[in-house]
Amino acid sequence: MNPTTRTQVAIIGAGPAGLLLGALLHRHGIDHVIVERQTPEYVLGRIRAGVLEQVAVDLLDEAGVGERMHREGLPHDGFSLSFDDRHHRIDLHGLTGKRVMVYGQTEVTRDLMQARRNAGLTTVYSAENVRIEGFDGVRPTLRYALEGRAHAIEADFIVGCDGFHGVARASVPASAIQTFEKVYPFGWLGVLADVPPVHEELIYANHPRGFALCSMRSKTRVRYYVQCSLDDHVEDWSDARFFAELKRRLPQADAARLIEGPSIEKSIAPLRSFVAEPMRFGRLFLAGDAAHIVPPTGAKGLNLAASDVGLLSRALAEHCRGSDAGIDTYSQRALARVWKAERFSWWFTSLMHRFPETGDFGRRMQHAELDYLVQSEAAMRSMAENYVGLPLDA
Amino acid sequence: MNPTTRTQVAIIGAGPAGLLLGALLHRHGIDHVIVERQTPEYVLGRIRAGVLEQVAVDLLDEAGVGERMHREGLPHDGFSLSFDDRHHRIDLHGLTGKRVMVYGQTEVTRDLMQARRNAGLTTVYSAENVRIEGFDGVRPTLRYALEGRAHAIEADFIVGCDGFHGVARASVPASAIQTFEKVYPFGWLGVLADVPPVHEELIYANHPRGFALCSMRSKTRVRYYVQCSLDDHVEDWSDARFFAELKRRLPQADAARLIEGPSIEKSIAPLRSFVAEPMRFGRLFLAGDAAHIVPPTGAKGLNLAASDVGLLSRALAEHCRGSDAGIDTYSQRALARVWKAERFSWWFTSLMHRFPETGDFGRRMQHAELDYLVQSEAAMRSMAENYVGLPLDA
Repeated sequence: MNPTTRTQVAIIGAGPAGLLLGALLHRHGIDHVIVERQTPEYVLGRIRAGVLEQVAVDLLDEAGVGERMHREGLPHDGFSLSFDDRHHRIDLHGLTGKRVMVYGQTEVTRDLMQARRNAGLTTVYSAENVRIEGFDGVRPTLRYALEGRAHAIEADFIVGCDGFHGVARASVPASAIQTFEKVYPFGWLGVLADVPPVHEELIYANHPRGFALCSMRSKTRVRYYVQCSLDDHVEDWSDARFFAELKRRLPQADAARLIEGPSIEKSIAPLRSFVAEPMRFGRLFLAGDAAHIVPPTGAKGLNLAASDVGLLSRALAEHCRGSDAGIDTYSQRALARVWKAERFSWWFTSLMHRFPETGDFGRRMQHAELDYLVQSEAAMRSMAENYVGLPLDA
Repeated sequence: MNPTTRTQVAIIGAGPAGLLLGALLHRHGIDHVIVERQTPEYVLGRIRAGVLEQVAVDLLDEAGVGERMHREGLPHDGFSLSFDDRHHRIDLHGLTGKRVMVYGQTEVTRDLMQARRNAGLTTVYSAENVRIEGFDGVRPTLRYALEGRAHAIEADFIVGCDGFHGVARASVPASAIQTFEKVYPFGWLGVLADVPPVHEELIYANHPRGFALCSMRSKTRVRYYVQCSLDDHVEDWSDARFFAELKRRLPQADAARLIEGPSIEKSIAPLRSFVAEPMRFGRLFLAGDAAHIVPPTGAKGLNLAASDVGLLSRALAEHCRGSDAGIDTYSQRALARVWKAERFSWWFTSLMHRFPETGDFGRRMQHAELDYLVQSEAAMRSMAENYVGLPLDA
């Protein structure tokens, strides 16, 4: 790559948001470059959620990378809520006519990377000192260094798909941006293991000891979580302790048939709700985690990244055809959907976790809501329509 | 009345819960006495909510006191949610097939008092030093003084319909009772005035300055509220200040046509969620505010009192026919409905009020939920089915 390059769109970040945006832009014939500060191995090593909404599935198909997902992914028509030692199935398909696809973010990323290599598209990995300038003018520039050598990409637009800690949002003057945040007083301790899932659908458990989730990546790989303290350390959680705690939080029938196995990954993640407004600053756009974070309950993070870049790719394609309507309304349209998903993720998190500060009254509110939910078709449908994902223009 | 009386059921409290219970027991041919420490005028002077669920309407009909309610009450098929200077109608009847009846608690009380006089039933007003004993045995006794003279009522059962501060719950050993409570950091400033309502249906307004509610008691009498500080004093709120504040919180079109009038009552009420468990202690039962308090958003207080005494009157009638199944399950059945109404009242309160402690993120969660609610039929139906009231056995 030459020290100075011209492209239409410079994308920061080669996670699923940046890669999917690149794939969609490529379909629209829009020239772009992706710059990523990590290595491909590092990006693939991140363990994230694995439940895709129909909107995300459709966008992966539109990007031409859905083939393996449809072959190996697991369509799920429902999930289980458990409390009081019982299961209650939320019949997503019966309630909404839609389903979700269980397919790990790592696999989505892998498919997008492979498609990118096949198409010969440029991804710069291990870029150092990435910075952006001039996005409030007509010719924004993305600068970085590679093995000590300075590079510049002049683009029509820059898109920050570089996550919560990325350089894109950090480059916007504080006075131009408003942020909203809630940090939850607990974390998720997650374990990845190669054993068959305890149940064919996901189990979300509300238990006096705390939340638990039995998720999966395939029919032979599970992703299980328990709510933990933010003071906990992974080293203090042996596999034996983890599985013992998980089983205490599940209905007895599930605990009895749960198969344990050695963890191949174990980590603690904090839970955060975060939104930055707006999502456009002149010729800079934000998408995905760069603009917003959801707590993982309900698995909206990757799905919001997909819907953001879905809207943005269409807006940029419209721009190339001469209309700025799409890019002028991108921020507003994306945020309308983002806030509703933030609301759902906050609600689902609030419903299922133990919050010491809400006390016994708060516990009873959760219990009353769960009791009501599983006997009200309207309430279950409302939950289901959010879980399977609101329309792209929500 | 003789110093010692025998009756089947001794009821403490001649508010709507006690009066309705008395009327229902009378229909079942069950002998009872009501003892109230206040005067009839004091009881009638309390201004409370005025929206009756179908369950409450049916129970008033069952008690034979529904005639004036059906003639003068206002059946409402919907209500308005307002935010962002707009109205969104919740079509209760279209969503649930049910409606609510706007008819003030004062009128319900008046009708029950009149029916009681007509039937020649005993109500002891101005009873002093009311106390109960022996309800853990077979022969509970209610004692009180009247003009300095001691009286005793020996009964099969005692029912505490004597409100949050009443003697019934206070007579239960602390070790036998579990309480759950949430106190909200604001109050409602309410004004009663004889002017036509601003809108034919109720308006619940979420506004950055705080909640407002335009309710009514009839086509010529309004009950309007604004969320206020708990440090506020009624004396600091002139009618002019009240109406100015109310109008700022309504959509402009409503504010423009709102007719002001001199207040005939003005008061500040705190907001509280409270539940005591269980609702039966041997031969003592609790019903209504004696066992639980809801914040007024959604008007569930009187309705829960009605459903409690509806369940209890049937249980006592079953007991007289030889089965204790009803009285043995009263607490559990009543509480199942109570907790769901507590959940709804807490949710509706949380959605509509300004909570300084939840900050900007909390405001946006409210906004996202309102935005979602008014465009999701499932979410509106869930709200509506709670607003019109869950079944008696919820």
